Amino acid sequence: MHSDLIVIDGLQYSNWDRTIFEQLHQGGVTMVHATIVYHEQIRETLLRIAEWNRHFEQSSDLIMPVKSAADIRLAKQLGKVGIMFGAQNCSPIEDDIGMVEVMRELNLMIMQLTYNNQSLLACGCYEAEDSGVTRFGRQVIKEMNRVGMIVDMSHSAERSTLEAIEISERPIVISHANPNTFHMAKRNKSDRVLKALGASGGLLGFSLYPFHLKNGSDCTLNEFCEMVADTAELMGVDHIGIGTDLCQEQPHSVLEWMRNGRWSKDTDYGEGSKANADWPKPLAWFRDSRDFPNITNGLLARGFSPPEVTKIMGQNWLNLLDDGLKAT
Amino acid sequence: MHSDLIVIDGLQYSNWDRTIFEQLHQGGVTMVHATIVYHEQIRETLLRIAEWNRHFEQSSDLIMPVKSAADIRLAKQLGKVGIMFGAQNCSPIEDDIGMVEVMRELNLMIMQLTYNNQSLLACGCYEAEDSGVTRFGRQVIKEMNRVGMIVDMSHSAERSTLEAIEISERPIVISHANPNTFHMAKRNKSDRVLKALGASGGLLGFSLYPFHLKNGSDCTLNEFCEMVADTAELMGVDHIGIGTDLCQEQPHSVLEWMRNGRWSKDTDYGEGSKANADWPKPLAWFRDSRDFPNITNGLLARGFSPPEVTKIMGQNWLNLLDDGLKAT
Repeated sequence: MHSDLIVIDGLQYSNWDRTIFEQLHQGGVTMVHATIVYHEQIRETLLRIAEWNRHFEQSSDLIMPVKSAADIRLAKQLGKVGIMFGAQNCSPIEDDIGMVEVMRELNLMIMQLTYNNQSLLACGCYEAEDSGVTRFGRQVIKEMNRVGMIVDMSHSAERSTLEAIEISERPIVISHANPNTFHMAKRNKSDRVLKALGASGGLLGFSLYPFHLKNGSDCTLNEFCEMVADTAELMGVDHIGIGTDLCQEQPHSVLEWMRNGRWSKDTDYGEGSKANADWPKPLAWFRDSRDFPNITNGLLARGFSPPEVTKIMGQNWLNLLDDGLKAT
Repeated sequence: MHSDLIVIDGLQYSNWDRTIFEQLHQGGVTMVHATIVYHEQIRETLLRIAEWNRHFEQSSDLIMPVKSAADIRLAKQLGKVGIMFGAQNCSPIEDDIGMVEVMRELNLMIMQLTYNNQSLLACGCYEAEDSGVTRFGRQVIKEMNRVGMIVDMSHSAERSTLEAIEISERPIVISHANPNTFHMAKRNKSDRVLKALGASGGLLGFSLYPFHLKNGSDCTLNEFCEMVADTAELMGVDHIGIGTDLCQEQPHSVLEWMRNGRWSKDTDYGEGSKANADWPKPLAWFRDSRDFPNITNGLLARGFSPPEVTKIMGQNWLNLLDDGLKAT
C-alpha cells in the first residue's frame, strides 16, 4: 500500500511511554483512540489528562493531540501520531449531565456508556439482565450528540446497544469487539446488533485482544481476515475498521482495576478466570503497533481491493469522526 | 398514651434548625431518621455531616446523635430527640464498596439503594423497566449487612425491591411509602412487595407526604388510620411504623435538587407536574412534628390497642434497629 494510507486504531490502552509512541510511529499509525480512563471519576480524569499534556510536551516530535477530525489529517501531514482521548466507562461525567460538555472541551472525544456492569446510563455485558438505556442515559446520549462526543457501546449489553443505536441521532460505534459468530464471548456482538449498527451508519472496530478471538492467542492472521470478510458482507465494507484493544506494558494491577474498579470485594476475573487471571499472550502476528502492516497485507492477501483496505484501515473511522466530532 | 411512649419517625428531610428541633421535642419524638443527603457524593456528604455536628454542638439541650440503637433509649431517658443519619440515594458511596463501612463509621445508619432512577445498585421506581439488583448492588447489600447499615427501598422499583428482600440476610425497610391499594402512585408499593417485606421481618413506614395519600393534602386522619389497619392485616402489626417524609421549610430549589439532581437538563417534576410543581400543601392534622399525638390518638380511636399503638409509633422501628444496626 502507498505511504499516504491513513491508519486509525480505534482503541488502545497502554502504559504509554516514548517507546510505545515510537512503535506507533513505526507501524504507520496516523491516529490512535487512547483510553485515558476506565473507572476514574472527574478529578482522576483531569489527572490523566495532565499526564497526557506532559507526554505531548515531551514527545512533540512523535505525537500530537487530536482536537478535531482535521487534526487527524494534520497528524498525517506532519508525520506524527494523533492521540484521541476516550473513556471506557461513563465515570468521567459521574452523575452530572453538565460534565459531558466539560469533558468534550477537554477533548474527550468518545465515551462508553458502560463498562461490563450496569452504569447510571445503560447496562453492561456482564450483568444478568439488561433493561436498556436509563432516563439519565437518554439525556446523556442527546447531550453527547449535541457536543460531538461519540457514543461507544463496546462493553455494553445487547438491548442497551440496540436502544443506543435507536436513540442516538448520530451514528455510534463499537470501537473494539468482534462478531459472536466468529467467537462466542460476552464482549463480542450478535449479528442483530452488528446489522443495526451498520444500517445506522455506525462502525465496528475489530479487536485483536486474544479473548475476543477464535483460538485466543493462537488465532491466525488468515482467520482474522476471514472474520473481516464475513463481517464486511454482514455490515457493509463502509462500516468496519480496526480497534486493536492493545494493552501494552500494563502491570497486573491495571488488569485488576479494569475488571474490579472499586465495586468488588471479591476478585472478578472478567474475561479471564482464576486459573487464567493474567493478561493474555499477544498474537504472533500482532505483538505491538509495529505490526500494523501485517493487517494491511493480510487484508490484501484475503482479496480486499486497495480502496477497501484503505477504508478498513482508517478511512471509515475518519469519515465517522469527520461528522461525529462536530457539535450540532 | 403514657409518657414513656417511644415515638420514631422513619424519615424526615427538613431545613433543620432550632425551631424544628423544638417541634420534634414538643411532639414527643424520641428519634427521627434524618435524610442528610439525596444525590450528594462523598465529599458533599461529609459537608452535611459537619453541618450536623454543628447542630449537635449548638442544640445539645434538644438533640443528640444516634450511634447505636441503645442511643435511642438513651435519648428517651434524657428527654432529647435522637437524630439518625440516612441517605436517600447511594451517592455517598459513589462507585466504591469500601465507602459502605466508612459511611457507617460516620453513623450513616440507613441508605436507599436508589432514588427514582437507575443507580449503580438497583432500579428506581421512575424507570420504564427494572432488571433488578446489579452485580455491584449484590456486593453492597452483603456489605451493608456486614457492617449493620439498613437497606431502604422506598424509592426503588418492584423487582429490585423483591430481589433486595431476597438477597439481604437481614430485614430491610421501606421507610416512607404507602400501599398502592390505598393510593396508586409510582412511589407507593404493591401488596406483593408489602407481603414479602412483612414475611421477611422487614418494616414499612407510612408516609404522610400528600402525594402518597388518597385525596392528597385533603386526606383525613380517619382515612390514614384505615390504611394503617388494612396494612396491619396484610403485613402483620409488627411490621409497620411511621415514616412521615416531612419536608419542612425547604426552598423550591431543594425540591428541584431532589427531583433532578445533576442528571437532567430538562426539568423533571417527579411526583408533581408542570402545573403543580411546588411542595404539596401539608395535611391539616399533621402540619409538623408537634402533631404526632394526633396520629397516636387517631390509631387508638380506630380501635388499635395501646400495645399495638406502641408498636406502630416506634417499638417496631426500635426492634428492627436493635438488630439491624449491629455489625455481624
